[in-house]
Amino acid sequence: MRIGVAGLGTVGVGVLKIIEQHGKLLSDRTGRNFEVVAVSGRSRTKDRGVSLDGMTWYDNAVDLASDPNVDMVLELIGGSEGVARDLCVAALEAGKPVVTANKALLAVHGTELARLAEKNNVPLAYEAAVAGGIPIVKAMREGLAANAISRVYGILNGTCNYILTEMEETGGDFAAILKDAQDLGYAEADPSFDVDGVDAAHKLAILTSLAFGTPVDFDSVYIEGIREVSAQDIAFAQEFGYRIRLLGVARRTEQGIEQRVHPCMVRKDTAIANVSGVFNAVVAEGDFVDSTVYEGRGAGEGPTASAVMADVVDIAAGRVSPTFGIPVDKMTDIPKIPVEEHVGCYYVRLSVFDRPGVIADISAVFRDEEISIESLLQRGRSPEEAVSVVLITHEVKEAALSRALEKIEAFDHSAARPRMIRIAKL
Amino acid sequence: MRIGVAGLGTVGVGVLKIIEQHGKLLSDRTGRNFEVVAVSGRSRTKDRGVSLDGMTWYDNAVDLASDPNVDMVLELIGGSEGVARDLCVAALEAGKPVVTANKALLAVHGTELARLAEKNNVPLAYEAAVAGGIPIVKAMREGLAANAISRVYGILNGTCNYILTEMEETGGDFAAILKDAQDLGYAEADPSFDVDGVDAAHKLAILTSLAFGTPVDFDSVYIEGIREVSAQDIAFAQEFGYRIRLLGVARRTEQGIEQRVHPCMVRKDTAIANVSGVFNAVVAEGDFVDSTVYEGRGAGEGPTASAVMADVVDIAAGRVSPTFGIPVDKMTDIPKIPVEEHVGCYYVRLSVFDRPGVIADISAVFRDEEISIESLLQRGRSPEEAVSVVLITHEVKEAALSRALEKIEAFDHSAARPRMIRIAKL
Repeated sequence: MRIGVAGLGTVGVGVLKIIEQHGKLLSDRTGRNFEVVAVSGRSRTKDRGVSLDGMTWYDNAVDLASDPNVDMVLELIGGSEGVARDLCVAALEAGKPVVTANKALLAVHGTELARLAEKNNVPLAYEAAVAGGIPIVKAMREGLAANAISRVYGILNGTCNYILTEMEETGGDFAAILKDAQDLGYAEADPSFDVDGVDAAHKLAILTSLAFGTPVDFDSVYIEGIREVSAQDIAFAQEFGYRIRLLGVARRTEQGIEQRVHPCMVRKDTAIANVSGVFNAVVAEGDFVDSTVYEGRGAGEGPTASAVMADVVDIAAGRVSPTFGIPVDKMTDIPKIPVEEHVGCYYVRLSVFDRPGVIADISAVFRDEEISIESLLQRGRSPEEAVSVVLITHEVKEAALSRALEKIEAFDHSAARPRMIRIAKL
Repeated sequence: MRIGVAGLGTVGVGVLKIIEQHGKLLSDRTGRNFEVVAVSGRSRTKDRGVSLDGMTWYDNAVDLASDPNVDMVLELIGGSEGVARDLCVAALEAGKPVVTANKALLAVHGTELARLAEKNNVPLAYEAAVAGGIPIVKAMREGLAANAISRVYGILNGTCNYILTEMEETGGDFAAILKDAQDLGYAEADPSFDVDGVDAAHKLAILTSLAFGTPVDFDSVYIEGIREVSAQDIAFAQEFGYRIRLLGVARRTEQGIEQRVHPCMVRKDTAIANVSGVFNAVVAEGDFVDSTVYEGRGAGEGPTASAVMADVVDIAAGRVSPTFGIPVDKMTDIPKIPVEEHVGCYYVRLSVFDRPGVIADISAVFRDEEISIESLLQRGRSPEEAVSVVLITHEVKEAALSRALEKIEAFDHSAARPRMIRIAKL
C-alpha cells in the first residue's frame, strides 16, 4: 500500500512515525506493507524529527492525487475549502481511497464528498475528524449499526474542556485561564475556532449524520461558545451539584433533529461530568444497546495519527463502509428543530439591584410566561450594588425563557444582561 | 443473508427482534436483506414474544450448519464444550461464517477455532462475547490497530459490579446483597461463574489475545472472585479514597504478560471507579492513542443482541478481520508472568488481639520481608476481642507480601486470616 501524505504538521508527522515504528504490526494485521511514497508540506527543509528520504516531494498537495505511485491519499492539511478540498476531490475522482482528519471539510462538504466517493467506488474515511483517537466513527457506523440511535452527545473539544476544568479547579476567570492554556499549547493564538464552539459543531454535524442517516447539515447546528461562562456560574453550578461542560448534542425526536453546541450544566455523578482536562468523551444511545460511552484524547500527534492509521488499516484490509454508514441515496432528510423549540431546565443568573419588590417583579415575569421555578437563591445583600439572583427552572420551552429574560433585562433594577445556561438531561 | 440462529434464550430472542424491527435500517446499511430461516432452541412451543413462523426448527443445533438454506450461523447457546462447540466447528468446516456470543468457547478454544476459520476462509466473530453491547472487540481489533497495546483492563462482569456497588451504598454484606441480586435477576441461582471471577477471566483471556497478538491462554489467568470482600474492606477503602471493583487486567511488560482477575482498590477519581451497577467498562492503552475508555451495558437482551448484529452486519458488508486481529500463524507466544511476580501496592487487613507488642511484631515481619508501609490504621481498642489493623504498603513483590502474611497468620495474637486486596495503579 503506497501512501501519499498531504500535510506534515503534527498529525502528518505522527502518521509517518507509526508507519516507521509499527511496520511489522501493520503488515501482520493486514498482510500488506505500508510505505509513504510521496508527501507535501509547507516547508521542504524543516526538521520534523522523521525522515522523508525516498519520498517524492510535492509543493502542491493536489498533485499527490495524480501520482501513479500513490495508491491512497491522506489529507492532513485541514480547512473546509482550498487545497484540502481540491485534493480530496481529485483523489476520489482518480479512484484513490482518501483518509482525512478534516472535520471542517466533512461538516461542510461531507454529503457531496460521500456521493463522489460512491460514484467512484472508493472509500472516504475520517475517524480522526471526530474526537481524535477515540474510535467513535467506527463505533457509530459499525459497532452500533443494528440500533436506531436516539441521541449522541459529548465533549468534543479538548481546549474548552481544559479551560472549564481549570476554571473549576482554580476559581479563575475565562480570560486568565485561556491565556494559561495558550502558554501551555492547549489553545491556539487565535482561539475562536475552539472557544466559540465551531470546532465542536463541525464534529457534531458529522456525528448527527452518522447517527440518524441524514445528510450533514452544519448550517443548522446551534452554536454557543464558552467565552461568557464566568467563575461565578461555575461556583453556582457546584453549589447545585453540577459541573459546566461544553457539550455537542444531537437528538432525534418526533419533530425532527436537534443539533446544538453550548455550555451545559451536567450532574456531577454522570460520566460526562467526570471527564476532565483535554479529554473528549462521546455518549451514544441506541434502542437496543442503551447508553454507551467512549472516552480518550481528542487531539494531539499520537491519538490523531492512531485514528488516521486505523482507517488506513481498514482500507488496506478491505474493510469499507459507506461514508456516513449508509449510501447517500438512502439518507433521509429530517427537519431540524430550532433551539427556540428546545424544552429543558435552565440555570439563570440575574444581576439586579437589591431593592424591595425585585424578586416579586422577577417572579411575576416567570409566572406570566408559565415558567415554574425549582429553586431560587439570592446571594449578597447590598442596597446600592448589584447582587446575584440564581434560579433553576423546571422544564420550559426555550422561546418562553428568552422572552422572560428580555423582559427582566428591561427592568430598572437590572444591572447586567441575564445569563442562562441549559441543564443537560442525561 | 439467510441466518440460522442456535439458542433462543435472551440473546437469541433479542436478535430476532432486531431483525424484525430494523429490517430497513439493516438493508440500508449493507445493501442486503436479513432473514432468519432456521432456528434451534430448547423448547419448540415456548412463547418467546417473537414469531418463529417460516423458520425451520432443529432439535439438534448442529444440524443448522448443514442446512443449505443457511448462509450464516449464530451460536447463542453458550458453554465451552458440547453442542455450542460442535456447531461452530461444523459451520466453519462447511464454509459458513459464524457469529457467537460465547466467551467460554473463545477463551478455551479460541486459537483452534481461529485456525479453523482461516483454513476455511470464513469469518468467526464474537463482539458480544466481551462486555456485551460495548463494541470493544472492534475497537481493539480495528480502531486501535495501529498501536502497540501496553495494557487493557476493566470491569468485565456486571453482576460483580452490581454487588460491589450495592455493598458500598448500603453497607451490606456480600451474602445479603448477593441474595438481593438473585431476587432481582442480576445474579444466577448458581452465582459461582460470576462471583468467583470465571466469567470475567474468560473475557480477559480474549482481550489479552486481541491486545498482544498472542494465542488465547485462559489457563494462565490468575482468578480471585469477590466472595471474600467484606463490608469492612469496603468501608476502609472509602476511608483511604478508594472503591473496590473486580478488575480484569492484562499487561505487557518486558518479562511477558500478566493476566489477572481479582478485586482491586481503585482511586475514586478514576473513570473505572465511577462505573456503577451492572455496567461494564474497558480501558485500553496504546503507545500512540494513549488511554481510551469504553463503557456500557455488559449483558442483557438488547445490548448483547446489538453486538451480535454488529458482527452480522459487518460480515454481510464484507468487513472481516482475522479472529484475534492477526492470523494465527503471525501470533507470538509470550511468557505469562505468575501473580507471585506482580509488583504493586497492597491493602492488608489484619484481625489481631490488641495486646502490647502486636504492632511491633507485625512491623518486624514487614521489615524482614523489606516491605515498606505507607500507612497503618488501628481501629477499635479491646484487650480481649479482635481488632482490625489496616495497612497500605508501598510497592512490593506479591511473593514477599504472601510470605509476610503467612508469618503473621501464625502469630498467637492473630484472630483470623489476614486479608489482602491489590491496589490498582491506574
